[in-house]
Amino acid sequence: MELALRHPDLISLAAGFTDNETLPVDETRGLFAELLKARCTGEPLLQYGNTTGLPALCARTAARILSQDAATGEGIAVESRYAPDQMLITHGSQQFLYLVAETLLDPGDIVVVEDPTYFVFLGILQSRGVEGRGIRLEPDGLDVEQLDAVLTRLRRERRLHRLKLVYLVTYHQNPTGTTTCFAKKAAVLDLLRHYERAAGHPLYLLEDAAYRELRFQGPDTASALTASGGLGRVLYTGTYSKPFATGVRVGFGLLPEPLRTAAVRIKGNHDFGTSSLLQHLMARALESGAYDRHVQRLQARYARKAEGLTTALRRHLPPHIEWREPTGGMYVWARLPKRQRSGLNSPLFRRALDRRVLYVPGRLCYVPDPTRRAPDHEMRLSFGNATERELRTGVRRLGEALAQEAW
Amino acid sequence: MELALRHPDLISLAAGFTDNETLPVDETRGLFAELLKARCTGEPLLQYGNTTGLPALCARTAARILSQDAATGEGIAVESRYAPDQMLITHGSQQFLYLVAETLLDPGDIVVVEDPTYFVFLGILQSRGVEGRGIRLEPDGLDVEQLDAVLTRLRRERRLHRLKLVYLVTYHQNPTGTTTCFAKKAAVLDLLRHYERAAGHPLYLLEDAAYRELRFQGPDTASALTASGGLGRVLYTGTYSKPFATGVRVGFGLLPEPLRTAAVRIKGNHDFGTSSLLQHLMARALESGAYDRHVQRLQARYARKAEGLTTALRRHLPPHIEWREPTGGMYVWARLPKRQRSGLNSPLFRRALDRRVLYVPGRLCYVPDPTRRAPDHEMRLSFGNATERELRTGVRRLGEALAQEAW
Repeated sequence: MELALRHPDLISLAAGFTDNETLPVDETRGLFAELLKARCTGEPLLQYGNTTGLPALCARTAARILSQDAATGEGIAVESRYAPDQMLITHGSQQFLYLVAETLLDPGDIVVVEDPTYFVFLGILQSRGVEGRGIRLEPDGLDVEQLDAVLTRLRRERRLHRLKLVYLVTYHQNPTGTTTCFAKKAAVLDLLRHYERAAGHPLYLLEDAAYRELRFQGPDTASALTASGGLGRVLYTGTYSKPFATGVRVGFGLLPEPLRTAAVRIKGNHDFGTSSLLQHLMARALESGAYDRHVQRLQARYARKAEGLTTALRRHLPPHIEWREPTGGMYVWARLPKRQRSGLNSPLFRRALDRRVLYVPGRLCYVPDPTRRAPDHEMRLSFGNATERELRTGVRRLGEALAQEAW
Repeated sequence: MELALRHPDLISLAAGFTDNETLPVDETRGLFAELLKARCTGEPLLQYGNTTGLPALCARTAARILSQDAATGEGIAVESRYAPDQMLITHGSQQFLYLVAETLLDPGDIVVVEDPTYFVFLGILQSRGVEGRGIRLEPDGLDVEQLDAVLTRLRRERRLHRLKLVYLVTYHQNPTGTTTCFAKKAAVLDLLRHYERAAGHPLYLLEDAAYRELRFQGPDTASALTASGGLGRVLYTGTYSKPFATGVRVGFGLLPEPLRTAAVRIKGNHDFGTSSLLQHLMARALESGAYDRHVQRLQARYARKAEGLTTALRRHLPPHIEWREPTGGMYVWARLPKRQRSGLNSPLFRRALDRRVLYVPGRLCYVPDPTRRAPDHEMRLSFGNATERELRTGVRRLGEALAQEAW
């Protein structure tokens, strides 16, 4: 933000903002006109609701995830695992992540994350004094063998009781675009079940599906809720903000007892509950079909923008820079040769800024983990907010900055 | 909530919900129709904003408090104390209170509150492992001499360094309806300044003005921001939710550095920032005059409902029950004779429930404080949500329950 203000001509390939041109202005106006037409339908939008969430929205959300999972043909989508009374509606999925951390994590606890992972979650861990362990990310999800090795080591060090949670961003991951295959989710749950006795408490899998609905290529993948061992062990979160409108802060999460009761109590202390106005808007958007129509438009739009970005990458980036075609989400992860630093204090970052283009240095997406050195030669490029023209220009500028590097 | 569901015919004089019949359904529809008419005005509602708050809303809110304070003729309303860059917009003032607690309070810290006080704030303190000290509330605000004595005692016990905050609900207080006079705010700040050296850090006054705009009788009172010693020591919070619509979660607070920077970082971890949609709605409501018109209507409405409640109290309650005429807000505090218990497990509470009327037991509004015994013979009655008819019926039922007491 600060950089963007100081460099007005800056093209940001860094921001996690979504596409402006497709924001559902007309649809939202129409939904409010309808909802607020009469007092009887309008009053509930303007009054307090309960802390857990609008029952209609909880039910619709639970049913939606169930049907998405069932359609994949993977795992077993058991209805009871999606019970609306395990649902919590939050001000964005970010708030759900925060509540889970507040509910479950004490200073000195350990959380396993992907290497790299969603950097704002790392901010939450840091603020709670929680240690991280990073697990290498492969093209189909985390390296399960390395997870096994880390768990074995924690057990040997008698620190397994401090482990509470494995956090995975499983669909079109922020920052790499990676989707975790179902087999790996199942394997993670098997491992967690295996080590639970030594830990002395449940080991939870927190599955962050924030980008699941932004898939524009390939088949969907079943959530960990459908896996054997998923019952009572999986916390699943998603959001309506990114697929509909980020100004409408409505996220959701499923979580088992006793976590949910504790999280609801904390949510009550935060804000009593998510804004009724926002919840009714989303419930009506889902019910009327406006949401699904919008998501389809958005998927097509992001597919086009991803294509624009990757075409530009092929044209302007040196050939020894690695990246993969995205199949959804908003991000492409580019990997420079190892000796090539990309961090905030690197010459490359400064040269890119001189050329008025901004990326997220990959380093920021690695949890501080005393057991390994964090890579510093990667970058996250977003095709979410920039226009197609800006994507082309931005990548050309980035290519110029890279061309000046000594390889 | 749970009780209300099990007793459908229940009249709740307990809920902090606001009046349904005056919820601004038409106004909100009109504001959205206007804001979402064109893409250029609509897009900002649907996109992420910054974490601190919509600049236009920050500026308007700061100016509003300044002009309210200046109009009182009390204290000195210095513009710099209301700088928009000290403002933080939150999902209700509740979130502001939570962020302040997270920013400032560690387990084992001490917070001074009024006896009685806003009970959800007590929930926050409890969840953070913070100790409370209750200060007797007089008709014009807390007993300043007792505050002095408590501070002296903390200093003598060498515990003053654990004190961080004095929390006062200064306008039409929840739960008693008490408004703190300006002289007492100034006296509290004098005391805090006096004891600061012994504490070794700033002692803050957190002024909760949630009900300030719901005044329907008597003059306004200047905030503590205008008092000598207020600079850098006062945190002031208010809300647009209660005066406009509780389904629209928009509150605000002013806080000095370094607290604000820390609170903004935590808010970023919570939810990135308050929903743009809600903030633009409120900014436009303020700008267009719709908000002020609504507040005037609401004040008149609450004045009438307060009158309805107190008329019923005079008719149906035994004469030895004490209460005061409210001048704003939504609550009347009733005090039974001391031997008469009113708590959740008391015969009176159960008899009231049998007669299908609910009140908030006064006991819940007292902080657990090892240095005094919490009274258990009071009740909070709300005229916010119940209709005038329900108020009459509810008080009649309460009178019947009270008539069965052995006095």
